[in-house]
Amino acid sequence: MMGNPLHLLMNPRSIAVAGANNNPSKMGTIQALNLLKDGYRGNFYPIHPAEKTVLGFAAYAAPEDLPEVPDLAIMIVPSKAIVPLLESFGKIGTKRAIIITAGFKETGAAGLDMEIKINEIARQYGIRFVGPNCMGIINSQLSLNTTVLPTAKEPGLLGFASQSGTFLSQSLPYLNKRGIRFSKAVSMGNEANINMVDALEYLGEDEQTKAIILYIEGIRDGKRFVEVARRITPHKPVVAQYVGGSVSGARAGMSHTGAMAGPDFLYNGIFKQAGIIRVNTIEDLYAHGWTLATQPPLKGRRVGVITNSGGPSSTIAYTCDAFGLEVPRFSDGLQKEIRKHIEPHASASNPVDMTFDLSMGKLALTLPEMMMKSGEIDALVLHGAMMSGYLKEIYPNLKELIGNISLDEFLKVGQLDRKIPDGTFDLSRIHKMPMLISTFFDHEDNYIQGYLDTNNPVFYSPENTARALASLYRYKQIKERAPHQDVALPKIKKPAKEMISRALTRKQKALDEYEAKQLLACYGIPVTKETLTGKVEEALAAARQIGYPVALKACHWEIMHKSGKGLIALNVKDEIQLKKEFKNIQKNAGKKTPVLVQKMLKGSREFLAGMTRYAGFGPCVVFGLGGVFTEVYKDTTLRLAPLADADAREMFADIRARQLLDKFRGMEKVQLNRLSQILRALGNIALLHPEIAEIDLNPIIIDGAEPVVADALIVLESNIK
Amino acid sequence: MMGNPLHLLMNPRSIAVAGANNNPSKMGTIQALNLLKDGYRGNFYPIHPAEKTVLGFAAYAAPEDLPEVPDLAIMIVPSKAIVPLLESFGKIGTKRAIIITAGFKETGAAGLDMEIKINEIARQYGIRFVGPNCMGIINSQLSLNTTVLPTAKEPGLLGFASQSGTFLSQSLPYLNKRGIRFSKAVSMGNEANINMVDALEYLGEDEQTKAIILYIEGIRDGKRFVEVARRITPHKPVVAQYVGGSVSGARAGMSHTGAMAGPDFLYNGIFKQAGIIRVNTIEDLYAHGWTLATQPPLKGRRVGVITNSGGPSSTIAYTCDAFGLEVPRFSDGLQKEIRKHIEPHASASNPVDMTFDLSMGKLALTLPEMMMKSGEIDALVLHGAMMSGYLKEIYPNLKELIGNISLDEFLKVGQLDRKIPDGTFDLSRIHKMPMLISTFFDHEDNYIQGYLDTNNPVFYSPENTARALASLYRYKQIKERAPHQDVALPKIKKPAKEMISRALTRKQKALDEYEAKQLLACYGIPVTKETLTGKVEEALAAARQIGYPVALKACHWEIMHKSGKGLIALNVKDEIQLKKEFKNIQKNAGKKTPVLVQKMLKGSREFLAGMTRYAGFGPCVVFGLGGVFTEVYKDTTLRLAPLADADAREMFADIRARQLLDKFRGMEKVQLNRLSQILRALGNIALLHPEIAEIDLNPIIIDGAEPVVADALIVLESNIK
Repeated sequence: MMGNPLHLLMNPRSIAVAGANNNPSKMGTIQALNLLKDGYRGNFYPIHPAEKTVLGFAAYAAPEDLPEVPDLAIMIVPSKAIVPLLESFGKIGTKRAIIITAGFKETGAAGLDMEIKINEIARQYGIRFVGPNCMGIINSQLSLNTTVLPTAKEPGLLGFASQSGTFLSQSLPYLNKRGIRFSKAVSMGNEANINMVDALEYLGEDEQTKAIILYIEGIRDGKRFVEVARRITPHKPVVAQYVGGSVSGARAGMSHTGAMAGPDFLYNGIFKQAGIIRVNTIEDLYAHGWTLATQPPLKGRRVGVITNSGGPSSTIAYTCDAFGLEVPRFSDGLQKEIRKHIEPHASASNPVDMTFDLSMGKLALTLPEMMMKSGEIDALVLHGAMMSGYLKEIYPNLKELIGNISLDEFLKVGQLDRKIPDGTFDLSRIHKMPMLISTFFDHEDNYIQGYLDTNNPVFYSPENTARALASLYRYKQIKERAPHQDVALPKIKKPAKEMISRALTRKQKALDEYEAKQLLACYGIPVTKETLTGKVEEALAAARQIGYPVALKACHWEIMHKSGKGLIALNVKDEIQLKKEFKNIQKNAGKKTPVLVQKMLKGSREFLAGMTRYAGFGPCVVFGLGGVFTEVYKDTTLRLAPLADADAREMFADIRARQLLDKFRGMEKVQLNRLSQILRALGNIALLHPEIAEIDLNPIIIDGAEPVVADALIVLESNIK
Repeated sequence: MMGNPLHLLMNPRSIAVAGANNNPSKMGTIQALNLLKDGYRGNFYPIHPAEKTVLGFAAYAAPEDLPEVPDLAIMIVPSKAIVPLLESFGKIGTKRAIIITAGFKETGAAGLDMEIKINEIARQYGIRFVGPNCMGIINSQLSLNTTVLPTAKEPGLLGFASQSGTFLSQSLPYLNKRGIRFSKAVSMGNEANINMVDALEYLGEDEQTKAIILYIEGIRDGKRFVEVARRITPHKPVVAQYVGGSVSGARAGMSHTGAMAGPDFLYNGIFKQAGIIRVNTIEDLYAHGWTLATQPPLKGRRVGVITNSGGPSSTIAYTCDAFGLEVPRFSDGLQKEIRKHIEPHASASNPVDMTFDLSMGKLALTLPEMMMKSGEIDALVLHGAMMSGYLKEIYPNLKELIGNISLDEFLKVGQLDRKIPDGTFDLSRIHKMPMLISTFFDHEDNYIQGYLDTNNPVFYSPENTARALASLYRYKQIKERAPHQDVALPKIKKPAKEMISRALTRKQKALDEYEAKQLLACYGIPVTKETLTGKVEEALAAARQIGYPVALKACHWEIMHKSGKGLIALNVKDEIQLKKEFKNIQKNAGKKTPVLVQKMLKGSREFLAGMTRYAGFGPCVVFGLGGVFTEVYKDTTLRLAPLADADAREMFADIRARQLLDKFRGMEKVQLNRLSQILRALGNIALLHPEIAEIDLNPIIIDGAEPVVADALIVLESNIK
């Protein structure tokens, strides 16, 4: 924990702020005020070139004038002033800084130069800093808040690392109204020094933080990100939103924090591998994160729904079904019990729909308790609890009838204003079962405010309530995964290394199919039986040995993609046809070209596997549906190398066509251990041979039960990433 | 219009209410109060057995005592009292009623009997009614509101027909805070008499209603639903949520309003056919409906995004990309213009991100206007406009610094409290371009309240803002569809009719494959060249004529599914193999069975088409990917018969594998006119021959460019729906 640079940065005993003054319209002033007024109790030193006092505190002209060395320097000065200022702090021995100021890498080359410069200074003086171009931090344990808006009064449970400052400052009023409170939050900015992975690691170790949310525009150190996240997710949930994976999303991120984005597909894969739950809206990021931070673990997928209204009943039930949860019909016994408390026309089967009914004690306590105790559900969704909110709404129309008493009086003495029974807000804690609240009312209602105050997640949408439960269920699956095992790389195979060296010496940009398969075979990947030859007689002899039908393919490294050019003949059924096709291929190639004579595999199930390198992440392995349908369904999934067997198994479960791997229409179950071996070998090959840029195995044909690589491409590159 | 029963029901000159009294805790009382206080100006007659006056109005013991015949009777009495009461109203000549009372069909057999009874009375007296088991109606033009909550003060633009009363009553406070106001709304209840389709038709013709939303648990009259919706959607947008298509969704709907639900897949298809935009949450239903009701038509897919914050910029841009919109990079000229108004480190490329900046005049007026005038965008999303909401948030921390002035004073005189410039809220109207507002503040902010008051849609989620734009774009596509053409059915083919009669006489439950294809061929559907024979010599002769390879299949109507039973031999390549396989099939069939000798088609693209009947909808045609992958990807789509050519073309565009229909990997473009002909013929056959229960054509193989039916199943049934 102490090794993480955010530990000291989040817990400073003293802070110097440069950029605040006594003008309330200045951003720096507002940030300093939030720091002071939200409750920070450490020493506070304003740095100001002219003012004697700032916000009632003695001001100092420069760091060197300070009476003590502050633990943390916060800088909101113009970008040109950052370099000398940071150096001054470095000289006096300050080791942590937050650089709020924007105008660095995100603006182009000049800004990047400046950013490199500040990082050099930081290294020179051993300073670790957050930013530049950020909104700073929140540590609710210290009441430390450096953002432009005040934060919640009570400490929270949700940790947040965000590549947007807005999402932890502009959104604070929004979050307060939803009862969502941060434990610690970091606005990452350009991540010149401390980055997202540092923040993730810090939040993973922070005891106050019960769940972590990440807003991501691009990860700089993907490999470490996966390692760190994989350590955290078995014991603490992590939810992430990633928006860099589209053209305009990537452009927006680039001009926002200079983030280097990668394809959506890449992030999808690594999130799964690391056990991170992905969401696609900031609303879900907050709400699912808060649900995970506050609710007991979900033990199964059976959801009880109780409402005073059929519409929300149905939409919640539908959404549960759509997201892999279950709304089981209750046993006759339980239904009978419930029936005693509801109108004859109401429904007890689950969803329990009391129909429009103001008996809040039943809706919010008696019946939920009965359902929770029944053993028939694993979670509860409650829609419709309300009292003062409803009374406030109907008061204007009722006023005259009730003798023009005031609203306050109406709320106090009105017969509907029964006290909320004890235990109403503690159901989830008492019964150790997640309980989520759906409502069309808000904090202006006393029930809703009660739920918000007691960390019961409240949703202003019935469907979103159900979807948050799905994230709880997803986390259950993540926790139940086999523990991650480190992967030991095999030794380099000498023939493989030699084959690559030879090809590079010959300035080949790729291996030819024959070489590629030889290399794959070195690492235990099953490939088609085949012979390479330039002579038709040898081809005939090979075909005789392999057995007809065979496939013929032109084979030369320059021919990377053969289809549609008359360079392949499939299902060659006899000698006559072989001779003809052999000649044809030579003709279509335009020159004498070696031909591969290959066993024609019979399986009608075709998959693909591959390896690609992504900047910051390193080699990744892809698996999915192959053959003709590759581009049609784009049904593939990805993991970072090296792969454990468990990673490969998860990839199998990940593709939509997963049932093709099982017994299917009279075909055998695929040998998954062999398929796993192929995927793991691909990752290992990539790690052992950095000269390989890319591998593409398509199709991998399932021959009976056995996966065999029928075509392979290995691309080499001189500029090794 | 006058023909629609809701016209009079929505516009009564006089209303009698049975079930209200002077007890403010009674639902009927609250509903009557809302009726009176929300502003209804017609005559009002309470019916009450004992009271002399109710809510200050003279009460009458029974309908026959009333001084005039009321246009509308509203009943909130116990369910057992409904039958006699309705009859009394019938006798005096009241022609419209709303039955709020629950406890009918939704509760089981006894309730259903009672519901049948009230419908009989209604028929007898010419009464049309809404309900039972509903929340009544809202007509904002008359200030007529019969629900349990007060409605908005100003009339709205959004029409709503809902199979949930909650969604137009419990949600009213929620909607008010979002500026969403109904024109007319109907809570359908059990639809014993007036149904969803009546309401849709009414809203379609209502001039005040600019867009329609539907909350659906099950449609009773699917055929008319499609007809009515198809007439409306070219000139008025319709958005629908359907929740009956899952196990628990259907169960919840059944116990809610006794709705008969159908599969999700069915509703997906008919919504598309009818030009209805589908959403999956009630939040989207309201928000997308309101956006469509208030915004000018979207002319293209180019979205301009302006924010004071990088996070929302990026999430909006990503979501636009994900939903088929575009966030184009601005021209250098436009960027240069924008740069004049923003900080050097801010971004002008689109998204325009001013970064944290309180220059609201620029963010909310100057720059949006510049972007709208540029010709480079078709819609604008604005995130971050705020003033009083922000000031209220920072006031407590600033208070001391600003001399402890009051919040009101601070808001009034604070230098930040500039007047909102004229035109800020009119941009969309002036420039005839959709403008959507994203914010983390709410109606407590003066900017947001301004947008809400002027029908500018406000979203408390950046991503949802982008998704609502996608619905505007979807509606543009719907409006641009070719006008619907009525389909003229062909004449019944005599041989087809005879074939069916013969099979039914023989008590066949299906046609055999040979018969089925003969029948299909009668209606112009291309089928494989084939011969049916019980003799091996004839099979050999047929194969000689067709040309090897051939397929052999056992052919008998009792063998509906042949695969996996040794009853099919594919790729039979010569006479020797044919003889062997012929014998095998006989053996596996266990008795002498006719064999179909069929041309073996070569195409590697396989589709399926079929026909199924759904209660309330009639015959529907299905199209999708066929062959081995049918169950894997479930990539199919559906339309109600009869199909126009345009329907078939939309089905082609609908499937994920649509690129397989085009030129693909060296294969020809599929003859889509022939494929369309197959789909249309299937619908026609179903309409002409009600004895056919189901048709299944799988695979339809693409032979070169031509689709040919390789296998066909026609199931007959005695109980014709």
